[in-house]
Amino acid sequence: MITFKEAYQKVLEHPLDLGTENVPLLSSLNRILAEDIYADRDFPPFDRATKDGIAIQFSDFANNGHSFSIEGIAAAGVVQQVLKDKSNCLEVMTGAVVPEYCDAVIMYEHITIEDNKVTINEKVTKGQNIHYKGSDEKVGALLLTKGKKISPAEIGVMATVGKSTVKVMANPKICTIATGNELVEVNEIPKPHQIRKSNMLTIESALLDSKIEASSLHLLDDKSIIQNELKKALTENDVLLLSGGVSKGKFDFIPDVMETLGVEKVFHRVLQRPGKPFWFGIHPKMKTVVFSFPGNPVSTFANYHLYFLPWLQNSWGISIDKSYIKLGVTINIKQPLTRFIQVVTAEKEGVIWATPVVENGSGDLTSLAKADGFICLEPRDMDYEVGEVVPFVKTR
Amino acid sequence: MITFKEAYQKVLEHPLDLGTENVPLLSSLNRILAEDIYADRDFPPFDRATKDGIAIQFSDFANNGHSFSIEGIAAAGVVQQVLKDKSNCLEVMTGAVVPEYCDAVIMYEHITIEDNKVTINEKVTKGQNIHYKGSDEKVGALLLTKGKKISPAEIGVMATVGKSTVKVMANPKICTIATGNELVEVNEIPKPHQIRKSNMLTIESALLDSKIEASSLHLLDDKSIIQNELKKALTENDVLLLSGGVSKGKFDFIPDVMETLGVEKVFHRVLQRPGKPFWFGIHPKMKTVVFSFPGNPVSTFANYHLYFLPWLQNSWGISIDKSYIKLGVTINIKQPLTRFIQVVTAEKEGVIWATPVVENGSGDLTSLAKADGFICLEPRDMDYEVGEVVPFVKTR
Repeated sequence: MITFKEAYQKVLEHPLDLGTENVPLLSSLNRILAEDIYADRDFPPFDRATKDGIAIQFSDFANNGHSFSIEGIAAAGVVQQVLKDKSNCLEVMTGAVVPEYCDAVIMYEHITIEDNKVTINEKVTKGQNIHYKGSDEKVGALLLTKGKKISPAEIGVMATVGKSTVKVMANPKICTIATGNELVEVNEIPKPHQIRKSNMLTIESALLDSKIEASSLHLLDDKSIIQNELKKALTENDVLLLSGGVSKGKFDFIPDVMETLGVEKVFHRVLQRPGKPFWFGIHPKMKTVVFSFPGNPVSTFANYHLYFLPWLQNSWGISIDKSYIKLGVTINIKQPLTRFIQVVTAEKEGVIWATPVVENGSGDLTSLAKADGFICLEPRDMDYEVGEVVPFVKTR
Repeated sequence: MITFKEAYQKVLEHPLDLGTENVPLLSSLNRILAEDIYADRDFPPFDRATKDGIAIQFSDFANNGHSFSIEGIAAAGVVQQVLKDKSNCLEVMTGAVVPEYCDAVIMYEHITIEDNKVTINEKVTKGQNIHYKGSDEKVGALLLTKGKKISPAEIGVMATVGKSTVKVMANPKICTIATGNELVEVNEIPKPHQIRKSNMLTIESALLDSKIEASSLHLLDDKSIIQNELKKALTENDVLLLSGGVSKGKFDFIPDVMETLGVEKVFHRVLQRPGKPFWFGIHPKMKTVVFSFPGNPVSTFANYHLYFLPWLQNSWGISIDKSYIKLGVTINIKQPLTRFIQVVTAEKEGVIWATPVVENGSGDLTSLAKADGFICLEPRDMDYEVGEVVPFVKTR
């Protein structure tokens, strides 16, 4: 059996080139940007008034009690106005182009207007309340870099530079596969010896959080059915995510069938708890990657976060999420298994602390809904102490 | 002008009762649960084998070198088998019902099978490798509480108890409204004095992160158009989110028109930067709530997170997200404005630190894409010091 670190490394050594695709701007939310985004003009694109008031040409007049006659108005969304006489002013609105020959904007709060004459009541400085052309970014400036996760702020930036469609990293085509005769649909009433499918709905929804819509299959424990269905699934998908059928049972056909179908086993079983009987392989010709997780809910969920998500980020060519947390209790981890322990997190004085949830083994589905993630602890002689910083995998 | 704290409090004093709706299980992801979820059976629902191997009745035989004859096999997904002779055993698979009269499961790794006879090679304890009926949860137990945000783990729990549709908090009907003659569509080439719409796409995508699909409008700076369109929008929506038209400009018609249409102003202008000219009101009969944000991108984005999201969580009856972070630099905040400063966050030794981003005022849209959120600092005489814990509003 290999260690968790070895298994993790081997998974990362089998990325797929997923390519890119173009999607409408709003659909790119939470996807990974696959192109660099540049400024198509200066930002702002013109000298922009940032206050409502008047625009003047800054000169001796500005601070000597001179009254400015109003020549006209510069509204937002109209072409640049021109100040004809520098002893006059133009009214100007927030977002408007500052009129030609003007270099100061004085807000209404700081002036008095009487008979079309403006008196300035506060000290004026040259350039005030003007957001100068190109002062945020120059045309051609790199605004967003390929590989960035697209949040609402990036949507705004891309809207500004006219990206109505955006190139994003393409998603792998994924089929989630539940195995086992004991499983019935969510809307069915299970017989006493049956349970409802839940693992793969958990995984399907986790995939939706990465904006991936997966297809799904349920395989009964019949070797020939499994073989036919998996053959098709291997052809049609980039990734298969399976749950169950990888232990030592008489009906655990997955490893055998995979090898029959030409999927090369990279490893089977890892020195970890939960999730030990994890089988990982790749079809050398079709390049389909197979994550075959043990069937217990906590095992499937842990392995999805521990292996699949890093694999996905690695395939997209982006850096893998790494997070650390302070341990709220003392824990001893005996050899030889790496342990993934479900924890709740709580913030105290700007620091996040992890406390293990009470759980009843890897079959305890309800424990998942109590936890915020897993802490990852390698076996060692010394206790893990309160306040020690340990790796954390967030699951909500 | 009122303080930020007063404005925030006034916004929270105007929640809407948004009601609930039923959605298919997978669609409930990231929504707010609006019902309590109970166990419909014991979990696990039967004494469940957690290993592949044999099941025996624990007795003197177990640890005395006795060989057990195999009576048959108990697979997952079939009715409970019965051990006929307690000196025999049944093969049993992970997930199967432990056969009647059996109370220990010994995994294949710990036994030798020869001529249908099993020899046990390791010490056996009563109850080993059995996940007992009801040991995780008893039928009727409260598994998930109303008000919880639904993550993949909750999807799994709800699948297990047969919730193919789920009652969630209903979303408000929202219209996002951009104002200003200077705005053109994302796919247009703006003239020199024009800019593309970006604010409301930022807000629309932020709403999508809360699983809310909003409609949108663009109003030109024409009082009668604004009045007609807003009249319709007030009737058709629960919430209007506007950007622009609330400053002191000649074409800032929004406050006037709102009052003409019977929307009662709760406040206009807050002692804060960015986002000072924020106008907030409610129509006393139609109950439409109006958030009219200043038109600068940073102002709109900040106010959305500072006011609208807490208002939404409050309307849903859930606790409002509160977060704190350690300050990485010294900052002085002079009277009288509450400041919201864009920061990047970085983790060091399990602690999250905030460092301000370099920005060029509230019109600097590109700064949003550099930041992870805002820190919220009240004005005070003393400096904010490095390491001080301050409120943080996450925006990605």
